[in-house]
Amino acid sequence: MSDASTKAITIALDAMGGDHGTDSVVPAAVAALDRHPDLSIILVGDHDTLVACLANVHVAESDRLRIHHASQTVGMDEPPAQALRGKKDSSMRVAINLVKEGVAKAAVSAGNTGALMAISRFVLKMLPGIERPAIISAIPSTTGHTHMLDLGANVDCEAEHLLQFALMGSELARAVEGVENPRVGLLNIGEEDIKGNANVKEAAKLIAASPLNYIGYVEGNDVFAGGVDVVVCDGFVGNVALKSSEGVAKMISNGLREEFRRNWLTMIAGLIAYPVLKRMRTRFDPRRYNGASLLGLRGIVIKSHGGADALAFGNAIDIAVKEVHKSVPSRIEERISALLAKPDRTQAEPADQ
Amino acid sequence: MSDASTKAITIALDAMGGDHGTDSVVPAAVAALDRHPDLSIILVGDHDTLVACLANVHVAESDRLRIHHASQTVGMDEPPAQALRGKKDSSMRVAINLVKEGVAKAAVSAGNTGALMAISRFVLKMLPGIERPAIISAIPSTTGHTHMLDLGANVDCEAEHLLQFALMGSELARAVEGVENPRVGLLNIGEEDIKGNANVKEAAKLIAASPLNYIGYVEGNDVFAGGVDVVVCDGFVGNVALKSSEGVAKMISNGLREEFRRNWLTMIAGLIAYPVLKRMRTRFDPRRYNGASLLGLRGIVIKSHGGADALAFGNAIDIAVKEVHKSVPSRIEERISALLAKPDRTQAEPADQ
Repeated sequence: MSDASTKAITIALDAMGGDHGTDSVVPAAVAALDRHPDLSIILVGDHDTLVACLANVHVAESDRLRIHHASQTVGMDEPPAQALRGKKDSSMRVAINLVKEGVAKAAVSAGNTGALMAISRFVLKMLPGIERPAIISAIPSTTGHTHMLDLGANVDCEAEHLLQFALMGSELARAVEGVENPRVGLLNIGEEDIKGNANVKEAAKLIAASPLNYIGYVEGNDVFAGGVDVVVCDGFVGNVALKSSEGVAKMISNGLREEFRRNWLTMIAGLIAYPVLKRMRTRFDPRRYNGASLLGLRGIVIKSHGGADALAFGNAIDIAVKEVHKSVPSRIEERISALLAKPDRTQAEPADQ
Repeated sequence: MSDASTKAITIALDAMGGDHGTDSVVPAAVAALDRHPDLSIILVGDHDTLVACLANVHVAESDRLRIHHASQTVGMDEPPAQALRGKKDSSMRVAINLVKEGVAKAAVSAGNTGALMAISRFVLKMLPGIERPAIISAIPSTTGHTHMLDLGANVDCEAEHLLQFALMGSELARAVEGVENPRVGLLNIGEEDIKGNANVKEAAKLIAASPLNYIGYVEGNDVFAGGVDVVVCDGFVGNVALKSSEGVAKMISNGLREEFRRNWLTMIAGLIAYPVLKRMRTRFDPRRYNGASLLGLRGIVIKSHGGADALAFGNAIDIAVKEVHKSVPSRIEERISALLAKPDRTQAEPADQ
């Protein structure tokens, strides 16, 4: 797997998932093939629908763009347990099966997060030494971006899980960003007498004792200030922080639009400032950050936002391609086995299980 | 207390607290007296320093602006227990004592949050039926603002505490905003299989069963979207959400400045757009939102941001004045005793204790 970066790769796309299904996925796939000459894509979903979609965009099936039929679709609000047990031929499940079978190196889906997590975990299994998957994503910062995990996979985390997140997040940042020694921070609050809850304090000790480049506690505002590469937190807190930050960005963006539309003078000012405002919008465009990785699995699974359009879904594909080239899961596996050094657990779960 | 809105009121200011101490507090006090003809202020702190500060701004001591000497100051990083036990003549403690003694109707401090919490709780005591104080603040939203609590006083909260926060927050919003039936939401995450942790789910049941106008779960982005008046969460999550939103706002504001300073063309565009950008900055100026209330106490204590300048500290004073006029603690007490109806607890803690 270490020479993956020189080989052609194949990824599987859940073509039916998300709010827009094939309308986002098919054009995103076609564009991604142009961007990545070494990439092949398997579109997983209803065969007839996909044939019609390709005809609509005047693209023919080829060696690089194949259709793999799946007869079912996981609904966006479907309970994960039901999706896991009742829909064994869903486009989501089949895409992940292709990763399990080695036909594809990664799966990308804009479908229901809970179902994607449950199915990925069931089909692919966890890496040895990792107890829970975590959702990680890049988030824009003043100086570039920050990786943050967990963003919603785990509501209640123990200190040991936060350490595992730190290890996985650090290795992901090393692999995809090329940062040699990523700065890892633990999300906490700064109120003086209550600095952190018991789990966070305990996790701080564990992470500080690891060989990671641990820079200590960071607060919510630090995530965006650019002084940290990987921010570790439990999934409840991470999800709230992510959604809050999206909410603020949207509020400010709406506010700007409103202020520039106030009267004809402000509208003229808006026209003159348009190129600058557009650059700004591009810089913080959430679509450019679409694509969260489900870390800790024996395979690469990327979750796209459910509402992703073709541009946003394309970004999730790019993340999948990058993680395949960098062999992220095997790097995490090596790092964990070297660092955690827990003979009882790693021997109980041999790598070829 | 119900006719407080027609009477002159006195508030005590911890003049030595915060990063800027008297430099923020004294000018803020002078300006507040101009804004509120019914207001008197007691500046609590080192007498000689305060005399010199007043001389600097050419203001004389008067009936409406008195100095009350306190020989000690609580440090911004001082452990709360040490501030509570070791500094009985601190400006913070003395200001709160004045509230306890009925000399002042409210205290405002920009000092160390943990110490302010510990001292307020020790000196003023909790309202009957409330187990823990909570920090609440208004946060800007697309349609105005949202009140959010707890913002950092309580790291681990049980469902019952979240219910108490909901009751207090709703009553505060009713009192200071004049909203008859504030919409109360419980902060949660939307991942499908893991919707909320056990505490949040239990709290949802309790709040839904109360007479509050409970609108259900809200997510991080909803805080800023304007569809909810009071957002309830534990202090860890609330603090992270608040700080994250501040971080994003700052990042965007810095990004805009950077983009407009890119070259002479963008600078001209920036000059033309300046009035609009300035309106925008004013609209979301965090100083206009400075001032968080410590709810659940038998008295009014307002926490100003430590870094507050005179304008920001003035906003915290305005919040104190408003809460005094609206008799917030007694309204909360009445609401709680009517709603919670826990004879065992309320009888054990008579209101005059």
